[in-house]
Amino acid sequence: MKKLLLLFILIATQSVAQQTLSPKIQHLEPANWWVGMNEPFLQLLVHGENIAEYSPSLKYKGVELLASHKTDNPNYLFLDLQIGSKTKAGSINIHFNKDNDSFTQEFELKERKSQSAGREGFNTSDAIYLITPDRFVNGDPSNDTVEGYTDALNRAEEYGRHGGDIQGMINSLDYIADLGFTAIWPMPLEENEMDQWSYHGYAITDFYQIDPRFGSNESYVELSQKASQKGLKLIKDVVLNHCGSGHWWMDDMPAKDWINYGGEYKNTNHRREVVRDIHAAQADKELYTRGWFVESMPDMNQQNPMMANYLIQNCIWWIETAELGGFRVDTYPYSDASFLSRWSKRIMTEYPNFNITSEEWSTNPAITSYWQKGKQNPDGYQSYVPTPMDFPLQEALVKGLNEELGWNTDLNRVYHSVSNDFLYADASKLLIFPDNHDMSRIYTQLHENDKYYKMAMVMMATMRGIPQIYYGTEVLMANPNSDSHGEIRGEFPGGWSDHTANAFTGQNLTEKQKEAQKLIKTLFNYRKNTPALHEGKLLHFTPENGVYVYFRYTDSQKVMVIFNKNPKTQQLDLTRFAEMLEGISEGKDILSGETVDLKQPLTLDMETARVIEIGG
Amino acid sequence: MKKLLLLFILIATQSVAQQTLSPKIQHLEPANWWVGMNEPFLQLLVHGENIAEYSPSLKYKGVELLASHKTDNPNYLFLDLQIGSKTKAGSINIHFNKDNDSFTQEFELKERKSQSAGREGFNTSDAIYLITPDRFVNGDPSNDTVEGYTDALNRAEEYGRHGGDIQGMINSLDYIADLGFTAIWPMPLEENEMDQWSYHGYAITDFYQIDPRFGSNESYVELSQKASQKGLKLIKDVVLNHCGSGHWWMDDMPAKDWINYGGEYKNTNHRREVVRDIHAAQADKELYTRGWFVESMPDMNQQNPMMANYLIQNCIWWIETAELGGFRVDTYPYSDASFLSRWSKRIMTEYPNFNITSEEWSTNPAITSYWQKGKQNPDGYQSYVPTPMDFPLQEALVKGLNEELGWNTDLNRVYHSVSNDFLYADASKLLIFPDNHDMSRIYTQLHENDKYYKMAMVMMATMRGIPQIYYGTEVLMANPNSDSHGEIRGEFPGGWSDHTANAFTGQNLTEKQKEAQKLIKTLFNYRKNTPALHEGKLLHFTPENGVYVYFRYTDSQKVMVIFNKNPKTQQLDLTRFAEMLEGISEGKDILSGETVDLKQPLTLDMETARVIEIGG
Repeated sequence: MKKLLLLFILIATQSVAQQTLSPKIQHLEPANWWVGMNEPFLQLLVHGENIAEYSPSLKYKGVELLASHKTDNPNYLFLDLQIGSKTKAGSINIHFNKDNDSFTQEFELKERKSQSAGREGFNTSDAIYLITPDRFVNGDPSNDTVEGYTDALNRAEEYGRHGGDIQGMINSLDYIADLGFTAIWPMPLEENEMDQWSYHGYAITDFYQIDPRFGSNESYVELSQKASQKGLKLIKDVVLNHCGSGHWWMDDMPAKDWINYGGEYKNTNHRREVVRDIHAAQADKELYTRGWFVESMPDMNQQNPMMANYLIQNCIWWIETAELGGFRVDTYPYSDASFLSRWSKRIMTEYPNFNITSEEWSTNPAITSYWQKGKQNPDGYQSYVPTPMDFPLQEALVKGLNEELGWNTDLNRVYHSVSNDFLYADASKLLIFPDNHDMSRIYTQLHENDKYYKMAMVMMATMRGIPQIYYGTEVLMANPNSDSHGEIRGEFPGGWSDHTANAFTGQNLTEKQKEAQKLIKTLFNYRKNTPALHEGKLLHFTPENGVYVYFRYTDSQKVMVIFNKNPKTQQLDLTRFAEMLEGISEGKDILSGETVDLKQPLTLDMETARVIEIGG
Repeated sequence: MKKLLLLFILIATQSVAQQTLSPKIQHLEPANWWVGMNEPFLQLLVHGENIAEYSPSLKYKGVELLASHKTDNPNYLFLDLQIGSKTKAGSINIHFNKDNDSFTQEFELKERKSQSAGREGFNTSDAIYLITPDRFVNGDPSNDTVEGYTDALNRAEEYGRHGGDIQGMINSLDYIADLGFTAIWPMPLEENEMDQWSYHGYAITDFYQIDPRFGSNESYVELSQKASQKGLKLIKDVVLNHCGSGHWWMDDMPAKDWINYGGEYKNTNHRREVVRDIHAAQADKELYTRGWFVESMPDMNQQNPMMANYLIQNCIWWIETAELGGFRVDTYPYSDASFLSRWSKRIMTEYPNFNITSEEWSTNPAITSYWQKGKQNPDGYQSYVPTPMDFPLQEALVKGLNEELGWNTDLNRVYHSVSNDFLYADASKLLIFPDNHDMSRIYTQLHENDKYYKMAMVMMATMRGIPQIYYGTEVLMANPNSDSHGEIRGEFPGGWSDHTANAFTGQNLTEKQKEAQKLIKTLFNYRKNTPALHEGKLLHFTPENGVYVYFRYTDSQKVMVIFNKNPKTQQLDLTRFAEMLEGISEGKDILSGETVDLKQPLTLDMETARVIEIGG
């Protein structure tokens, strides 16, 4: 009840998404909709005490109330609306009537922004900067602690809130763009009204509201617009699988089956294999998708069609509201697979040029490829996610760099991983990354070996796929003491006024940090302006003597990338690469700026990578 | 020249395949053919000094000489024959004419044995016993050394010939059948006229002739017939990729491109990944299939259509001649892929119920599955091999048994491997094996851990697929000193008269050996008579606490298989398996013979496997 009271106060004071609610209604979601959408159907969730006793009706040209659904909870109604293709924007009055009472609730149909349907999501021309907002930059200290939110500022605690926010990201857009990135992916920013660990954002307690400790719905839109002005697309981190246990509906569930296992905690088995496994037991399959990720995150039941509609509409609402440039979806396969098919189809039908990257943390490409749009799965499953994450390559890269040379080891791991690309419908669209927010920092994974770090970054900037780099990688952020998430997601140097080192100004950075930052800037600005790295095909050669060579090429441009993992200087005979180098006499080394003679063997320093551009 | 002379002597003295050759002809292959084949086309290789100067002709009702092809070597002619569907058996006279000379060569068209086309290859009801003939049983000491063959008996040498032979296998058929096996796969028996290492059989120097140190074409047919009488199918080990450097044609090649790289040694890169890899360099692809396996084994060029025909016909010739029950194909993907498609299609079209298992030694199921009949490959490649080898499972089994418990380790490896079965067109047909002749003995791989050995054998007898067990596994043959092939392929105890231990009689076997032999006998005789293990579906449960459980089931029978890899006794709550055990109160433990109460938790001893039959 305390929570419910708090919510009333918040609703009254905050103008959630510009909505004015009747006193009889606690929640009406989505807060608004748009005319001119591809899909005419819209389902409204209406939450209010005994609201199911009322009969809803409306009169609005081009809008039809198809049905009103009651659930096993009398405090909810779900209204099915059909919005005709020629319907005009405006305010719909929805009338609620019962014997002795009636009231009216407004619902706004907005005009869509022009070009909204054709919006371009992140694509192979992009490079993504992943941010943990609470740990990146504290741009507005006034919202570090917000009254009514129990998890207050506590920088001494790894799992506490450190105060980073949307304003911090807005302030840093120039820095990110200068590094050569063209998209940002902040971890979730919606309200996480949780007693602890709220900083990470994945325990969402209101899917329509930015957490006030990060900013507001308005500042989020501002972030998107300012980012766009600087050539940065905004990718929203979407959670379809679970909510936070502090979500308002946990006190008054829309239906008994709204949350899996009736709202009782039962952990998932984390056995992602069951989805494709033709031999899997039914019990295991059910536990995988219905089980909860952790106790503090109730698992949403997308087999309930109202829940499914709720999640789909929420995502579209954010695309329209915040003019998004893509989604990253958390814990993707833990949700109901048929829902995911419907969800991803709906998003990609409404926005054909949009993009979605989904987290399937498997290092088995036969599993990760299952979820890609266009994949012909033996079981007939259709997904519409263009950009699965390439966890197999991430593992191969780290293992390969750390290992001694051998037949199946070192860069053979990368070679083998990329050789599996036939499993994907389109491997060129995969998200590639050296690390992310859920694992040790790449610099730590590589045991702070600067040569390996450099090789990893060269690969990220040149390999097929869409690279994602975690904030601070450019200044060698590391987690030397533990692999706890709190340490991994450290404060970005210069993000707080009391920091002595500052990545924005270079102040007190070590020489190594400066060198790394310069490398990232060189590589990703080069990538940004090099079509062969956006749409070029990949051709690679089997590793020999620890040397792995691949080319990215279009009709007019070639980029030759060479990794010498061998711990000694080597001469590389180029005759083996004749099918790519025939008739070519020289190239340009992108890192040194020097011209390279390609008519004779190349000298490769130990444990280095070279990027040589040819033609263009 | 010495070799050529030797060959003349052999041809004159041995009645190779019942052929009588004109003095003008050194080789005419195949030695004969059959009427009533599905495929009417037949191509004869004719080898004789300046034979290309002659014009061939023939008159035989229902047989047409379509064409006569010359090559760049005047000592060869290839004759294209078409044999009509109603042609009668008999002897064709082929006339060879030139200006001042002519001669006639007979060529026999035989009657096919009835039911030959419908012959049944090994299938999921079978269990295969793999034999290294030189090391199994020396049944005929008189052929241990054969005049004219340089590699003579030398038991002191691991890589020398030890004298095992076809007669030894004939003598052992009862023993093998008693163990519960239903098929034998001897390593190749064709002539290997090589200076050394000839014992293994893979360096074939005459594709139409059994090596006299093993026996004769006649004794090979006798082996097949006697095996069949005891319920054992004979599987022939086929080599399509290479011949031995001592092959007769190496002194007078049918065409300059008969052998890859014109007969000059250039090693393969062994990079099987290139076949499916969409990014592979042309140079790597070419080297993989055209490169030689080793210097002593010239790599045959199946892109030469005459070579392709030669190999296809040779295989069919052996099926018809020796009434075979299947093929095992050596180094499968090292041959030209389009040839393999044609070859396997032809075999399986001519014999729709036949079976082929092909060696693709990759532990990546995305690669091994490529070669299975019915697989929908993204590149459109069609294979017709029903039974790829399950190297991924072999690796998973050994690693899993040897490892400590963990999230991705121990029997999770097996679980993960089997979970990939969706990659195959039909995983139930895979060849499964704990080891084979090319790797350390399973007992050695398991560090002679008797509990793990037992678990491995239980899995081999009960998992989906067609099990293959290497000779001597039943008496714990091991290679403790090295992983050299010579040691792995040791002499089978009792196979030689000077052995003190004898696996046939039990004499001087250790208690452990006797126990292992009894286990194999129990398991494979059980498998032999248990339909659920032949055609039953597989349903498995995710491992928990080191316990992995699967069921094989038909409508009328279930077999529950339980592995407790945990190094402690455990109680197994059976409620989790309700979808398989509902309504069932008891079962029978196959290994102990005891009745098992399935209404309460099962006690599992540490590191054991149980097989419980339900219903039936």
